[in-house]
Amino acid sequence: MPEYRAPVEDIRFALNELAGLPQLAATVPAYQAATADVVDSILGEAARLANEVISPLNRSGDVTGVELRDGKVRVPDGFAEAYQAIASGGWVGLRGDPEFGGQGLPHAVSAPTSEMWAAANTAFATCPELSSGAIEALETHATPQLRALYLPYVLSGEWAVTMCLTESQAGSDLAVIQTRAEPRGDRFRLFGRKIFITWGDHELTPNIVHLVLAKAPNAPPGVRGISLFLVPKYHVAPDGKLGARNDIHPVSLEHKLGLHAAPTCVMALGDNGGAEGFLVGRLHEGLACMFTMMNCMRLGVGLQGIGIADRAYQQAVAYARERVQGRSADGKERVAIIRHADVRRMLLTMRALTEASRALAYAAAVNLDFAKHAPDPEERRRHLARADLLTPIVKGWGSEIAQEATALCVQTHGGTGYIEETGVAQFLRDARITTIYEGTNGIQAMDLVGRKVLRDGGGALEDLLSEMRNDQKALETDSGLEPMSRAFGAAIRATGECSRLLLHSAPTDQNFAGAVAFNFLMLVGVVAGGWQMARAALVATRKLKAKAGEASFLRAKLATAHFYYDHILPRAQAHAATVQAGSASIMELEEDQF
Amino acid sequence: MPEYRAPVEDIRFALNELAGLPQLAATVPAYQAATADVVDSILGEAARLANEVISPLNRSGDVTGVELRDGKVRVPDGFAEAYQAIASGGWVGLRGDPEFGGQGLPHAVSAPTSEMWAAANTAFATCPELSSGAIEALETHATPQLRALYLPYVLSGEWAVTMCLTESQAGSDLAVIQTRAEPRGDRFRLFGRKIFITWGDHELTPNIVHLVLAKAPNAPPGVRGISLFLVPKYHVAPDGKLGARNDIHPVSLEHKLGLHAAPTCVMALGDNGGAEGFLVGRLHEGLACMFTMMNCMRLGVGLQGIGIADRAYQQAVAYARERVQGRSADGKERVAIIRHADVRRMLLTMRALTEASRALAYAAAVNLDFAKHAPDPEERRRHLARADLLTPIVKGWGSEIAQEATALCVQTHGGTGYIEETGVAQFLRDARITTIYEGTNGIQAMDLVGRKVLRDGGGALEDLLSEMRNDQKALETDSGLEPMSRAFGAAIRATGECSRLLLHSAPTDQNFAGAVAFNFLMLVGVVAGGWQMARAALVATRKLKAKAGEASFLRAKLATAHFYYDHILPRAQAHAATVQAGSASIMELEEDQF
Repeated sequence: MPEYRAPVEDIRFALNELAGLPQLAATVPAYQAATADVVDSILGEAARLANEVISPLNRSGDVTGVELRDGKVRVPDGFAEAYQAIASGGWVGLRGDPEFGGQGLPHAVSAPTSEMWAAANTAFATCPELSSGAIEALETHATPQLRALYLPYVLSGEWAVTMCLTESQAGSDLAVIQTRAEPRGDRFRLFGRKIFITWGDHELTPNIVHLVLAKAPNAPPGVRGISLFLVPKYHVAPDGKLGARNDIHPVSLEHKLGLHAAPTCVMALGDNGGAEGFLVGRLHEGLACMFTMMNCMRLGVGLQGIGIADRAYQQAVAYARERVQGRSADGKERVAIIRHADVRRMLLTMRALTEASRALAYAAAVNLDFAKHAPDPEERRRHLARADLLTPIVKGWGSEIAQEATALCVQTHGGTGYIEETGVAQFLRDARITTIYEGTNGIQAMDLVGRKVLRDGGGALEDLLSEMRNDQKALETDSGLEPMSRAFGAAIRATGECSRLLLHSAPTDQNFAGAVAFNFLMLVGVVAGGWQMARAALVATRKLKAKAGEASFLRAKLATAHFYYDHILPRAQAHAATVQAGSASIMELEEDQF
Repeated sequence: MPEYRAPVEDIRFALNELAGLPQLAATVPAYQAATADVVDSILGEAARLANEVISPLNRSGDVTGVELRDGKVRVPDGFAEAYQAIASGGWVGLRGDPEFGGQGLPHAVSAPTSEMWAAANTAFATCPELSSGAIEALETHATPQLRALYLPYVLSGEWAVTMCLTESQAGSDLAVIQTRAEPRGDRFRLFGRKIFITWGDHELTPNIVHLVLAKAPNAPPGVRGISLFLVPKYHVAPDGKLGARNDIHPVSLEHKLGLHAAPTCVMALGDNGGAEGFLVGRLHEGLACMFTMMNCMRLGVGLQGIGIADRAYQQAVAYARERVQGRSADGKERVAIIRHADVRRMLLTMRALTEASRALAYAAAVNLDFAKHAPDPEERRRHLARADLLTPIVKGWGSEIAQEATALCVQTHGGTGYIEETGVAQFLRDARITTIYEGTNGIQAMDLVGRKVLRDGGGALEDLLSEMRNDQKALETDSGLEPMSRAFGAAIRATGECSRLLLHSAPTDQNFAGAVAFNFLMLVGVVAGGWQMARAALVATRKLKAKAGEASFLRAKLATAHFYYDHILPRAQAHAATVQAGSASIMELEEDQF
């Protein structure tokens, strides 16, 4: 089976021509180090790690799996060395504050590395990904003492991180967590049981920093009563030296459909007197802190989906090139199946979805960067609103794309794809979690319609649509792109109509937002993907005319955009029609009639 | 985990009110025994077997899997007893010729049993399903001697059956099989290696009848040179007594994503002098014989998909009823997730797709019955054309529905769905093969556009659309169904336009048919499903007015139809737009640009 090859050229195109990384580096002083040369060498080295170090462990990790024995979690061979390569290369702290040893690079640069590593080995990649997400939360919310003590170890990757949120009765609904935190002087003792803790325990690092949601005494009910605590696996002395084991332990591992190489733990806190923990952020306001982390993680899960989709595409193309079956359309010769139109349809669907969602994810990353460090506060606000709007879309749509692409990869392989040794069934199994974790796509959709559209009266979405309209007008001036302009215009209008209907109906129909949320998310995803493909087509056309850049590469961008408009964008009308239908038929059936 | 409960009421509604089983029994003498009472008692007993005997072995079979040891295939505990229950109940020969011990019942009655058994335990169900398919081929094509000797054992289920088609270089492309058959008097000796042979070997029955495609000497090249042979596992004396082992052996078993309890074998023929085989049908015309079997099997795979989708729906509903998470839309109380609109969307999507595709599959089964035994030859011809048209749609669309429903089932369960012990991941793994085997959905789509539409100038499809138009007019007369009528009308028109475009473009654009085939299949599937839902809505409305039948049941049919029209039918426009786009953007990318 051919290994993954990180698509550096495509990534560079998306970063430089679509997401606007050069403009970020040129206008935001904090990121002026992210020059084209620097970014190129980072991407090259990340690709090397992905291709040569991480990817070769993907299948063996799936086969070996993980094991909990004598209280210790054993992970597959090679994972320790691969983790060391990531940590020692400074990749965990790529975005981190230089004060604590981070590289201070933009999210736009870490996004492709997240994508590459997830593509190379999704189970492995979830480990450093957790640290990247945690860094932001600790930098923003932890006390100076905690930051000074813990951040250098987290940024360097010397210690790993987990997020301990879920309990058996509290999944999407964190308001009902029961883990409690009892104050003891300047710290707390935690008691409870957490489930679904990814990389909850392991021996890759000498210590693990658990970020745990719990309820302190006198907490108000609901999500406003949750606090966030830092709970180290081993106690840490003020000089960083490790002490005795803290009272947090893995109890069991889950047998999962996929991600076999990533230990998913049930974690027990306080079975022996209480797990010592330190408050992060303010008491009872832990969910806000966790959301700082969750938003990074959600973008990260979207990138995982995109990465897996890309790997599935690569694998399907390789098989389609070599598998000879059937005859050419003119019947004259036996051909590789890549010559069959229906196989090309499958490959192009994977390719177009991957390119569109990648561009959108990188755009959201650049928004996060502007939001963090743009000199002008209004610019920061505007970019934050855009990043907040795009995050659930990148997570939700990106992870749905992973389902479609991995299914098409299996389908391209025919019966061979159903055999585990082929390796492509693993992509499907691994991808399946991405629509679920870090908030199911239903939760993403409610986040989008509730917090990101209804709460600001549709302002951020209208801002996005208006930017799309400008680009759509630019398409009109090129005769070759005129059909694209018309289709894009109709899709923008449909999205605007759905947004207005949502704003109009949600206040009086309490089921409306929930009924339309998922299709609304998919609608905006498909249209925003179409926006990115239109922009790619504009760039490619311009460069081809100017004879700038490699013609075959640019023509491929154009062809992929054409395919997207023929095959993917029409889905927008179906999603829009469903939104227009509202909640009536969703609420019509009585509960006992199901 | 709640076990499967065969949806007998829904099945009866689809058979009696939509598929027209009563009209079949009333007008076709061969099926006059299939009275309402007889059918009811058959469905009741089939449901009991599905619920109580087969379904309880589903999860254990998945966990245990199969093993090849000392040349024998071991299957999970309980499978032998369950198989005996199926065989001794006369279920294998339900449709079979009474002359050889069959029940002579219509396909319309065996279709629900295929659905139920696949829903109860897909891996198990593939075994008797293979026999059902083979019976038709043997009845039609085998010599009187072979029929007399083998059919009684096959019809009674005493001997199982396999289909040996695929070779490693010959999957979708059977023209290039290399297994050869050397004549020896009135029989042949076969040499070759077959792969992906479902239930290729096992000890459930004392003998196995392999139907093997091979090439005899002087065969013309391509698919016109393939012959079909009956190759028994043990030699059979003229009196039916079993002799020595024939030279056909399992070499290894595949490790598959799903169907763990169904042995998928590599079979070696002729390693020790040749496997004795008997010609079925005419020399070099084996593919036609195999297609008799394949068509039954394809309808059967569609029913498998529908069955798995239904089981996934049942499981998701059960979980959604019991899982409390989040608050009601008015915020007043904690609720089971079935109260959340987005969860209802998922459940209703599964439900609506299942009901629509079930009705369509049963309709196709009734068409097969009329085609076989209607007194009037013109009626037989018309029904055969309709069955031929619907078969790839039922297989293709039904199996795609299984992907969507099983994914939604996992999604409804959230993180719990990703844990293997929950059991719903198995549905997804098992369902995944249905888009692939018995001809990938790409092959189904080419069958539809090539053999079923282009070859007869769109006649059979136009006949279907015209029947739809009649039903659409009937909707107009009921004010409550008027919106449905408009949407259905637009969908019929879109289908007609796509059909005309196909007929117009395929002759001059050799890539057109392949480029649009899959979306054309999905289009016709979605619209034909909408047709069945419209008919269900008409029946329910009429019965509610007449106060005939259980009101809650009928209102649920109406509500499900409304949901289908709001959420599923809009997909037709997306598929149609893609068909209208033709082949240009699919063929634009050069092979080396992928």
